[in-house]
Amino acid sequence: MKTRVEIWSDIACPWCWVGKRNLEAALDSFEGDVELHWRSFELDPSAPKESPEGVDNVARLARKYGVPREAAQAMIDRMVEVGASRGLDFRFDRLRPSNTFDAHRLLHWAKTCDLQDSLKEQLFQAYMRDGRRISDHEVLVDLAASVGLDPERAQAILSSDTHGADVREDEAIAGQLGITGVPFFVIGGRYALSGAQPPELLLKGLRRAAAEATEAEQTQAHQAESADRGEACGPEGCALPSATP
Amino acid sequence: MKTRVEIWSDIACPWCWVGKRNLEAALDSFEGDVELHWRSFELDPSAPKESPEGVDNVARLARKYGVPREAAQAMIDRMVEVGASRGLDFRFDRLRPSNTFDAHRLLHWAKTCDLQDSLKEQLFQAYMRDGRRISDHEVLVDLAASVGLDPERAQAILSSDTHGADVREDEAIAGQLGITGVPFFVIGGRYALSGAQPPELLLKGLRRAAAEATEAEQTQAHQAESADRGEACGPEGCALPSATP
Repeated sequence: MKTRVEIWSDIACPWCWVGKRNLEAALDSFEGDVELHWRSFELDPSAPKESPEGVDNVARLARKYGVPREAAQAMIDRMVEVGASRGLDFRFDRLRPSNTFDAHRLLHWAKTCDLQDSLKEQLFQAYMRDGRRISDHEVLVDLAASVGLDPERAQAILSSDTHGADVREDEAIAGQLGITGVPFFVIGGRYALSGAQPPELLLKGLRRAAAEATEAEQTQAHQAESADRGEACGPEGCALPSATP
Repeated sequence: MKTRVEIWSDIACPWCWVGKRNLEAALDSFEGDVELHWRSFELDPSAPKESPEGVDNVARLARKYGVPREAAQAMIDRMVEVGASRGLDFRFDRLRPSNTFDAHRLLHWAKTCDLQDSLKEQLFQAYMRDGRRISDHEVLVDLAASVGLDPERAQAILSSDTHGADVREDEAIAGQLGITGVPFFVIGGRYALSGAQPPELLLKGLRRAAAEATEAEQTQAHQAESADRGEACGPEGCALPSATP
């Protein structure tokens, strides 16, 4: 039996990429099988589709947090160090803020072809490392093709509104769960972990969820085995005692 | 934290009384606290409210199962032996088949006064042992009074349709759960056990449910403790790395 792991995340989200690496580290140590479901979450649904080139991300961050340019640069430097410690190459110097809605639509399609995880990784790289504009359909088709998806079909999906409802549905569930920050992990439909939790905690969640699922299965099997011992009355009458006590 | 135990059962149901004793034996060995919820189930909703006196239950059973009178008597004798082994005095010789809807309504009221379990026991005794007609309002008021419920209020409830919707709701849930025979136990909202399962199995279910609830609670506490470690991005921006790695 596979353990279901759902991760709400955005692409324009450095902690989400860190969270993906942490999850991968946890999965390396996990004994069971898992089923990954990358769920859509847009941190900034109003981000422009036509993001300009040559954005000064230090100035952007300084404005956003209301801090001097030097402080913003220090924040970026620290985030870059965290990324590097996980083998991730954050290049905020060339990052191009983009709307991620279409990328999320494409991820839903990739899921139907079992290529969601690969495409998610390509999207992180393109956005966080390569300074590509991931709202651009040409870029998205290219990334889809790079993981083995059909570029023509990708283009057709992007030109329509296919999978838009799936993105909205993920976001609606996020709302119901009270998710305001990402990444957000739900393991085995039971254990919720918010943020880029360290691999050890994710592994703990995975093991607990798997142990409980096994236990629940055994209980059911046990019930089936002992079905003849659980005598009952039904509309047709009562079971006869199986033996004189 | 209390473990929730829900039991769908009828009063006109010998295995349900046996199941109650099995549950009580399990609870004697159980280390935790429980919250009992007796849920309504009518094995024969069409049973007459005005059941006749002097029913020949052996003949009734022989007809029901299509067996000779001697075989029906043998079935009864075996059920009586099972009851006796649990300290229950089944008197099928004087049993008066009755509609149990009003008794179930009264049980819902008794629940609001924390007297449901006591009334349930009195109803089993009245029906299974004492040959009383438990569709009779006078009998029901008497039983209610015997456990400390206000007889006038009991009479008022019986004369109205109070708690009728509660009975129907329990039965609707039973339908959703696919319950066709009773007793039927649901422990901790997770473990379902069908039939008068032996005390050991019920105890196992109780312990599992309690252990899981404790574990879930600890996980939540653990999550809360480690909240500052799960860095995330939100609409207002991304968390700063807590320390240079």
